[in-house]
Amino acid sequence: MERKSQSITIADAAGFLKKNDNYYILTHMNPDGDAMGSGFGLCHSLRAMGKKANVLCSDPFPKRYGFLYEGYEPMKFTPQTIVTVDLADTGLFGRELQVYGEYVDLAIDHHISNTGYAAKLLLDANAAAACEVIYQVLKEGNMPINKQIAQCLYTGIATDSGCFRYENTTPKTHMITAEIMGYGIPYARLNRQLFEIKSKARFMVEQYVINNVETYLDNKCAIIAVTADTVKETGLAQEELEGIASIPMQLEGIEIGVTIKEKEPKKYKVSMRSAENVNVSDICGKLGGGGHMRAAGCTVEGDLSQVKLKLLSVIAPAMGFDLWLS
Amino acid sequence: MERKSQSITIADAAGFLKKNDNYYILTHMNPDGDAMGSGFGLCHSLRAMGKKANVLCSDPFPKRYGFLYEGYEPMKFTPQTIVTVDLADTGLFGRELQVYGEYVDLAIDHHISNTGYAAKLLLDANAAAACEVIYQVLKEGNMPINKQIAQCLYTGIATDSGCFRYENTTPKTHMITAEIMGYGIPYARLNRQLFEIKSKARFMVEQYVINNVETYLDNKCAIIAVTADTVKETGLAQEELEGIASIPMQLEGIEIGVTIKEKEPKKYKVSMRSAENVNVSDICGKLGGGGHMRAAGCTVEGDLSQVKLKLLSVIAPAMGFDLWLS
Repeated sequence: MERKSQSITIADAAGFLKKNDNYYILTHMNPDGDAMGSGFGLCHSLRAMGKKANVLCSDPFPKRYGFLYEGYEPMKFTPQTIVTVDLADTGLFGRELQVYGEYVDLAIDHHISNTGYAAKLLLDANAAAACEVIYQVLKEGNMPINKQIAQCLYTGIATDSGCFRYENTTPKTHMITAEIMGYGIPYARLNRQLFEIKSKARFMVEQYVINNVETYLDNKCAIIAVTADTVKETGLAQEELEGIASIPMQLEGIEIGVTIKEKEPKKYKVSMRSAENVNVSDICGKLGGGGHMRAAGCTVEGDLSQVKLKLLSVIAPAMGFDLWLS
Repeated sequence: MERKSQSITIADAAGFLKKNDNYYILTHMNPDGDAMGSGFGLCHSLRAMGKKANVLCSDPFPKRYGFLYEGYEPMKFTPQTIVTVDLADTGLFGRELQVYGEYVDLAIDHHISNTGYAAKLLLDANAAAACEVIYQVLKEGNMPINKQIAQCLYTGIATDSGCFRYENTTPKTHMITAEIMGYGIPYARLNRQLFEIKSKARFMVEQYVINNVETYLDNKCAIIAVTADTVKETGLAQEELEGIASIPMQLEGIEIGVTIKEKEPKKYKVSMRSAENVNVSDICGKLGGGGHMRAAGCTVEGDLSQVKLKLLSVIAPAMGFDLWLS
């Protein structure tokens, strides 16, 4: 889709939100902490101004973020204003929300990749989270910010920045967080819930990875394979295996982490993560896949041992090792 | 020791540091990120002013924090000014530094428990880290802050605050961090080193805990036992078992985590951690130990199974369960 949005400022967005009413606030499918935080942060503030507003998502709101929508019930009204938050592309609306794709009045986002599907776009690609942008809008417009709203915004910023660990964290992220903390949120308890507590299933997945990871190339490359048999044996659900790619990256000295999952007999889906220096998008590109510099993927066919060799024959030279397979 | 220090302000401390020369900067034994960061942050700044300064510690500087003292060599000079950082009590000086206990000119600290052993004391008990205090002193005194110094200060603040997760993190912590990030430090790489990467030994310890943790009282109490036999069987060193108490706390729903370590036959050292609501200092107090509300300890004698029963008989009523042992 061609970019068609009119770019607007924080002050414009605040003015727009104060002027209009009867809001549907849409966020992306598989909502994460920032989608939930920016959606409900904005919704609670609009409702506190006496306006009508609902948050809509194609997927159910995760229970994990239940504290963000405590006491929230959808209201009945005819929508007049459609706003999206943290939503880069109509492809991420999901099935339920697709009907709104052509009618979005305002998109508030932090993804440089925003396709410009909305009439107006407030985009800050330097913001660590959509919640950083929402906070600035609420502040600029003197719109209500209470403890629950601050909790929403903190959650979005903390989760999208890896609790202030990732590259996307800026001095401004910390300044905004300092202001948000001023509303008396129980940040230590939130952080424990968001970053420390793991389900038993997650512990089991980590245990599986720790017990089964193989390292190659001077222990700089970690490979973890999940076959159809292992899924059967461990009883782990596909969903529980989602975050597996990042686990071997925690091992000291690992520069590339590779996860190989059996999709069908002799066909493996490969996810690659890079710590810093190696471009895994290049590596996966050579195998017919692609992605980003530090996270990419491809599909490789063959027996598991063949797949590993194919992968290592491309990874080794990219990491500066002599090509030991010809 | 009776408190005898003269309390001074940030401006006083800055004036003192600029006026004097030939510094020995002492920090506590078993130095952590804040000890190392505040020691070297101050040392690098004093040296950049053309002064002589060394950092002294009873234990070797951990390699893990090698980037904080890259290029640092001890200088040869006769010390004239003794400053301590992050050092609450002369009991934490360690053997090598004990001789300086009576001669400390200035202590810069953030521990409310500072015993006042120094002539002058700059204490900010609300600071998350000694590095927060050091930053304010350097800024107030217009003393040098370069990228390496900023890296030292960031490391101390990030490690002592659990990367901004813990209760001790304040809005001011975030404000100061925003300013420190302005010096262009590679914070994402630092955070990966400090918070994500684990040694293989640590992975093995976590694996041991995950495989052997027992839960009681509606799965709200986790107990992990380390006997002399398990140490032998797993080959894990005592040192590697140090941080073990916090691991069961990551399990969903756990309110109390208990670690039981065999010290000698029929004698167990018990560490207790509480998530939020239960006062483990009270519980350990009833067993002849003590500590803080969320981290306490005691020693219990008997067979391992007896020790567990003794512990549960005190923990159960404290958590609101009927006393099921009489």
